[in-house]
Amino acid sequence: LLLTRRYRFAASHRLHTPALSEEENWRLYGKCNNPYGHGHDYVLDVTVEGSPDRNGQVANRARLDELIRDRVLSQLDHKNLNEDRPEFRANVPTTENLAMLVRTLLEQDWDLRPKLSAVRISETDRNTFTLQI
Amino acid sequence: LLLTRRYRFAASHRLHTPALSEEENWRLYGKCNNPYGHGHDYVLDVTVEGSPDRNGQVANRARLDELIRDRVLSQLDHKNLNEDRPEFRANVPTTENLAMLVRTLLEQDWDLRPKLSAVRISETDRNTFTLQI
Amino acid sequence: LLLTRRYRFAASHRLHTPALSEEENWRLYGKCNNPYGHGHDYVLDVTVEGSPDRNGQVANRARLDELIRDRVLSQLDHKNLNEDRPEFRANVPTTENLAMLVRTLLEQDWDLRPKLSAVRISETDRNTFTLQI
Amino acid sequence: LLLTRRYRFAASHRLHTPALSEEENWRLYGKCNNPYGHGHDYVLDVTVEGSPDRNGQVANRARLDELIRDRVLSQLDHKNLNEDRPEFRANVPTTENLAMLVRTLLEQDWDLRPKLSAVRISETDRNTFTLQI
Amino acid sequence: LLLTRRYRFAASHRLHTPALSEEENWRLYGKCNNPYGHGHDYVLDVTVEGSPDRNGQVANRARLDELIRDRVLSQLDHKNLNEDRPEFRANVPTTENLAMLVRTLLEQDWDLRPKLSAVRISETDRNTFTLQI
Amino acid sequence: LLLTRRYRFAASHRLHTPALSEEENWRLYGKCNNPYGHGHDYVLDVTVEGSPDRNGQVANRARLDELIRDRVLSQLDHKNLNEDRPEFRANVPTTENLAMLVRTLLEQDWDLRPKLSAVRISETDRNTFTLQI
Repeated sequence: LLLTRRYRFAASHRLHTPALSEEENWRLYGKCNNPYGHGHDYVLDVTVEGSPDRNGQVANRARLDELIRDRVLSQLDHKNLNEDRPEFRANVPTTENLAMLVRTLLEQDWDLRPKLSAVRISETDRNTFTLQI
Repeated sequence: LLLTRRYRFAASHRLHTPALSEEENWRLYGKCNNPYGHGHDYVLDVTVEGSPDRNGQVANRARLDELIRDRVLSQLDHKNLNEDRPEFRANVPTTENLAMLVRTLLEQDWDLRPKLSAVRISETDRNTFTLQI
Repeated sequence: LLLTRRYRFAASHRLHTPALSEEENWRLYGKCNNPYGHGHDYVLDVTVEGSPDRNGQVANRARLDELIRDRVLSQLDHKNLNEDRPEFRANVPTTENLAMLVRTLLEQDWDLRPKLSAVRISETDRNTFTLQI
Repeated sequence: LLLTRRYRFAASHRLHTPALSEEENWRLYGKCNNPYGHGHDYVLDVTVEGSPDRNGQVANRARLDELIRDRVLSQLDHKNLNEDRPEFRANVPTTENLAMLVRTLLEQDWDLRPKLSAVRISETDRNTFTLQI
Repeated sequence: LLLTRRYRFAASHRLHTPALSEEENWRLYGKCNNPYGHGHDYVLDVTVEGSPDRNGQVANRARLDELIRDRVLSQLDHKNLNEDRPEFRANVPTTENLAMLVRTLLEQDWDLRPKLSAVRISETDRNTFTLQI
Repeated sequence: LLLTRRYRFAASHRLHTPALSEEENWRLYGKCNNPYGHGHDYVLDVTVEGSPDRNGQVANRARLDELIRDRVLSQLDHKNLNEDRPEFRANVPTTENLAMLVRTLLEQDWDLRPKLSAVRISETDRNTFTLQI
């Protein structure tokens, strides 16, 4: 049984790769290369998999929320991804890379009974990125 | 080819496990343990899998709707899950258990051409439960 | 300038008027007359009107949220409207009457700078009730 | 890593199978058999799968959009499926058959780095059709 | 107290004004001028205004739905607006004109207790047309 | 007859008032005061009012879109409001102030036939700001 729980966070970012020229960056990332950045309301769906315990629950919701808040939302919500996150000093904060960062933040020392099954991030309702785990 | 068809139902429930003390119930279920219950507008997505027949359809929509209405919606819509459903006398009506009840109601004597592939219930847009079959 | 801020609460209710017979209640309220009740995820939109202050805000969001939580959500969220709210002992908890209760709860001793302008409650996305104030 | 990108198109169609009598068509397709047709706002989700390149992207968004626009949207958007598409002369334009047409249009000469993973079309939010590839 | 109730219908149309040349029609209506038409899933919101009666209701939902179904949905749902509606023989079926037709269909012999207050039609979520009455 | 047309833009901002101390800024704006900023996907609804012309339209959609794109979206989409907009050098870019900027950008030299009736901006689905004009 899969439980998908939805969280939201707002962040800003700039897509820019130092290895490329100004012109190549603009050609590659378009408006997302704007020097001062821009931002999004991201939707994060975390899926866990397990069997309901004798209290009928796959996961204790309070503990799951606490874990997501401590490891993910406190790091990303209302942040500038390029400036506030060391991972995005050398790494461009595309939503692809953001999804992989969230997976890394969750996977290490995952200590809930159900297993982590998928991480999905939507940048807008037009772009959704899914990592099956 | 998968067809996912969406249904909705409104129901009330109270999360309470008789084996636990009042205090443990409150710690476990929080506001959902409110003595007189509360309710939700549930979204039910039923997925069936098959090939289109020569009329271009994976399933006859009218027959699928009739089956879901007769076996599921007539049992759950505008009901108090704890009081109106015998399954939830001894079993706490979490959405996990509700998803498993819907699967059971559908699986027995499933007589449509496409096979039942998944049952998904959302309690609110923050919590979605999926059973792959 | 109008600010509409959205809140959500889950509650159960039963539509039943003691002055009417069982049969008349059923004819009037249909499935909503189910003896043990049912429930909804209500959406509450509160609109306030004012001019931005020198900090650019029509209302202090933290104070507005606190007021809505203390006066409204703490009274209605995860409640059985018929059993938990004295107003609905003698009064049927239709969404119309619920909207009027929310207005009453907010209007008395309203002490925010912007004025209360509208209360809107959606029972499902098919039924929305608006009180202009 | 899966990227699902959302597109929309508006089209009209009539469900009618020449091999069946008028009455059988009506029994099978109901209102969708209306002689002059009707229409929908379709939602198309295209999923591709790959690893982020050194610029952090699974797919170049501009190239993906161009491909979907040239092969799919330009053929279906603001069209009458029965009249404007040769595929639906002999084939009833159910959404099942429409999903299979979109897969065919995309699969042949697919030349993007990530592989095509799924095509999903929603006719309304009640009916979603998914083709895993 | 305003009650807004939501209905949906699917229809096809072609925007074309006989008084204009082919080229002018194309310049004016763009893709919506496609000779064989296209279609939409329209959302219709009907707002009525009144006071709750002693049963707590602004309008009897069953009677309101019956009226909307008989006068509006049965005329428009799963129809080709140009071919199936006499009003659109001489009149182009823009959503503006469709909203005015719905108002006309509802206003004549309106016999519900609450008064008709507004008609709103969305063609897609990008275009909404509102008639205050 | 009102036409409301929906646009979207993504931008970043930081809420900070130079006249206040660091601590007062934090108390007032909370997480929105993060030094490096954060961002949102804004939804902009522009409402115009008029009568349908003989071609059945309140406004020429292409001209309306062009005007909104030239005056508003090109100034705000994929921008850092504090850095890229001179108006927000001395003025804090709350959504209240952003709504007033959009009204100003639209009102001057408005040269469409229908009149500008309202500007509405949603920061997230929890916060909507409306300016009636």
